[in-house]
Formats: sequence, C-alpha cells, structure tokens
Amino acid sequence: MSGRAAVVLLSGGLDSATVAALARRAGFDVHAMSFRYGQRHAVELEAAARVAERVVARQHRVVDIDLRAFGGSALTDDIDVPKDGVDPDAIPITYVPARNTIFLSFALAWAEVLGATDIFIGVNALDYSGYPDCRPEYLAAFETMAQLATKAAIEGTAPVHIHAPLIDMTKAEIIRCGTDLGVDYSTTISCYDPTADGRACGRCDSCRLRQKGFAEAGLADPTRYA
Amino acid sequence: MSGRAAVVLLSGGLDSATVAALARRAGFDVHAMSFRYGQRHAVELEAAARVAERVVARQHRVVDIDLRAFGGSALTDDIDVPKDGVDPDAIPITYVPARNTIFLSFALAWAEVLGATDIFIGVNALDYSGYPDCRPEYLAAFETMAQLATKAAIEGTAPVHIHAPLIDMTKAEIIRCGTDLGVDYSTTISCYDPTADGRACGRCDSCRLRQKGFAEAGLADPTRYA
Repeated sequence: MSGRAAVVLLSGGLDSATVAALARRAGFDVHAMSFRYGQRHAVELEAAARVAERVVARQHRVVDIDLRAFGGSALTDDIDVPKDGVDPDAIPITYVPARNTIFLSFALAWAEVLGATDIFIGVNALDYSGYPDCRPEYLAAFETMAQLATKAAIEGTAPVHIHAPLIDMTKAEIIRCGTDLGVDYSTTISCYDPTADGRACGRCDSCRLRQKGFAEAGLADPTRYA
Repeated sequence: MSGRAAVVLLSGGLDSATVAALARRAGFDVHAMSFRYGQRHAVELEAAARVAERVVARQHRVVDIDLRAFGGSALTDDIDVPKDGVDPDAIPITYVPARNTIFLSFALAWAEVLGATDIFIGVNALDYSGYPDCRPEYLAAFETMAQLATKAAIEGTAPVHIHAPLIDMTKAEIIRCGTDLGVDYSTTISCYDPTADGRACGRCDSCRLRQKGFAEAGLADPTRYA
C-alpha cells in the first residue's frame, strides 16, 4: 500500500468490483466510496464492503444522500422494477436522475481533500441499459468540468482524470478481465431487486445482462439466485 | 405563478436572493433548493427560507449532504474563520472542495424530475474570493456536461441551461440590481461566522465584501452586525 491514492466508486456490483481490481493492479491505493441513496435494500452496501475488503482498500466511505427527495426512479421510489425485459430504445424506469453526476461530484470532493487526481468509475457504454450518464462523451465532459472545478485549476497542479476502464467492454469481457485479476464475483450483487438475504431475482434487466455475460464468457455464474 | 419551472440555488445570502428575484422577473416559477452541509450555523437556512417566502417560491427544498465527511474547509471543519483579511492571490481556507459541483449536480437531478431546463446560481467572478468553481469557464463546462448527463441528451428535448446572471457584476451592481427588484437584504446573511441569533461578524471576508458593496452602491447596509 504505497501507491498514489485513487477514489474508486464502489456499488457492490460486478462492474465496480472489476474496476477496483484494475485500479489496484495499476498501482493505486484504493479509497472506496459508496452511497446510501434510498436503495430498496442494504444488500448493495454489504456487497460493496466485501469488495472493498477483498481489494484491500485503504478506506471505504459510505456517503448518505437522499435522491428520494426528488423521486423519479423505480430504484428509489415505491414503483415496481420491470421483470419482463425492457424496450431497448427507451430509457428504463430504473434510471436515477443525474446519479452518476452526483456520485462523481462527491468523488471529486473527496479526491481534492485526499490530494488524489484519479477517480475510477465502473460505467460501460455497451451494456449500459440506455443511461445517458454512462456514455463516453458524458464522462469526457465531466472530466473537463472537473479539471476546472478544483484548486488544481488555479494552482496549476496535476489535473483530475476520470478513469472508466470498462467503457468499451462487453459484460463478458469485464467478467473475463476480473476473473483474471482474481475478483470473486460471488461477493458482488447486480440485481435491482434482491431478496433481503442478498439473493438476486434473476429476472430484472441487470440480472439478465449479468447472466448473459457469464454465459458469453464461458464461465460459471456464482450468483445466488432466489 | 404560471411560468416555466426553474431550480434556483438559494444560500440565504445576498447574491442568491438577487438571483431568485431575477428568475422571478424573467417569468420563472422558482423551485428553491438549499443545502444543509455541516455549516456551523442554521442561520443561513433560516435566511434562505425567508428569501424563498419573499420571492414567492413554488417550493423550497433543503437537501442534507455531509461535506464534513471529507473535511478540508474552515466552513465545515472546526478551524477558525480568518477575520483579518485574506491573501488576494491565495485560495482561502473557507473554500469547500467541489461545493458548487455538488450543489449544481443536485439541482440538475431535481430539474430533470421537475422537467425544468433552467438552473440559477448566484456565483460571480469578480468578488469571488478566489474559488475555482465560481469562474465562467467552470460554469460553461458544467453546462456542457449537464447537457450530456440527462435524458434530454438521449431524447433530443430542450437542453439544460445554467444561469449565472451575476457572473460579471460587482457586489455594488448586484445590490443596486436587487434593490431595484425589491429584494429586502435585511433578510439575507452573508457572514461566514454569524452569531446564533443571526447577526453578522462584520470582519470575515464575506462581510467585508458586503460592506464594500453597499458603500460603493451608495445604499444603507441593512445588515445586523454583532
């Protein structure tokens, strides 16, 4: 643990677990950040804590934010998560308004306090479920903004970089990459609607993408399904 | 109250009170948003509530965020606010990491839920105390990012605009403008270190800027000083 500090956004899912392992492999000390934002279940945060422990994070901070104050998403409101597939051309109801912008903004604040210039996020543009804030042009624009937002812009020190190493990877490629890095995917949870004891529904959009990914990677899916 | 909705960031200070009045004058329904972020005093939020009431805001929402989790500022840590002037070339210790980025991100989320495309913020670049996230280039970059961040970017609907109408104004010009619009500045508070009953210290950087502004505007300063 003597690398440079990086802030890694950790959801407890498959993608961010892979990103944390990639950050470690690149020589960074991982400062993991998760959010309690009105999710239906604490299962995600328990998974994030397991992932942080396994990747030997320097610290894991959980930030409380209340996205429910705004409403507007099946993930935070009391409306049903769709279970029978989604329209591939529509933005799904599980979209949370400006979520990645809020998450990255908190990561930026923490990075500035830590003196870190590297922020890792596990978005990918291929299996992105149609979310606008998972696209490369969005991330590039966030990075440009972030480089103007902090003291470094005034003081001329190193600028912030937003790393999204999964951006061009399929779910199968992510799973193969993480498996090579020793990620234990049984500790992660991708489901939008898990049971209270952490088993995945196997039917939501996120479960479907995950199952397809393991199948295409030719690897056994260690997920515990309901 | 039949205009388009706009989200107005309201701190309880002189600048944001003027911005709220400008938004109303421009025909917007004001949806005011303030933050409880570990400030030393509740005085700011009481002032924000008075300003929201006076500008006949459609609603006023206070969002809890915990910037103290990151530390790094005299406004949120237990370190003393400077009272004897500041180095004009240095970023002051009262700087809060990524604060405007976090505030604007929440405003963006709320705007998306409201179906609003206009966000107002009371930053200005002249009397900006050296904060990086009060500069026009920062705000332009945030707007570009925001236009890529939300459903509108996918669906091709109207893009988000960040309005910073005070950006090029001196404090004296802001005070004259607000006075013309009927803003009652006695209900606002600018002080970094007010007394518990809402009187300003008269000595911090923010109080000095405010006093200078009223003096240059040739108007009586209605601020209650300790």
